Amino acid sequence: MGKRRQRPGVQERFGYAVRSRRESLHLTQEDLAEKAGIHRTYLSDIERGTRNPSLVNIDRIATSLDLSLPELFVLVVSG
Amino acid sequence: MGKRRQRPGVQERFGYAVRSRRESLHLTQEDLAEKAGIHRTYLSDIERGTRNPSLVNIDRIATSLDLSLPELFVLVVSG
Repeated sequence: MGKRRQRPGVQERFGYAVRSRRESLHLTQEDLAEKAGIHRTYLSDIERGTRNPSLVNIDRIATSLDLSLPELFVLVVSG
Repeated sequence: MGKRRQRPGVQERFGYAVRSRRESLHLTQEDLAEKAGIHRTYLSDIERGTRNPSLVNIDRIATSLDLSLPELFVLVVSG
């Protein structure tokens, strides 16, 4: 069998969605972290897919990206 | 001013959605916990809104409820 590219895990897909939306809003990581009340390095780790964020922080990030939770997760699953 | 009922937090709304969907599938807490690979008492706490589940566990729960992540969060926000 040939090589297969593994489907990114949910942390990676979530991080990619957050970064894409943040950039489309022309927000820096510092801007978004401050809006969401989380630390900038924690947000950076979330965007790189190396953190497993909690529901409460996911909700804060969605609000700070002007998205409902379903809207944010549509971006996560649509890649 | 009169009394106001406070809007439930995201943990409570999430827990209510999980319980409602689980019951509509005629699954016990033990059934769902086993499918999702989480402990039954942890699931019970999530349903009561006293836990702040992580993205990875949210994803496992959604899959075990035969829902996509956007579908699960539509239930969360629609109450």
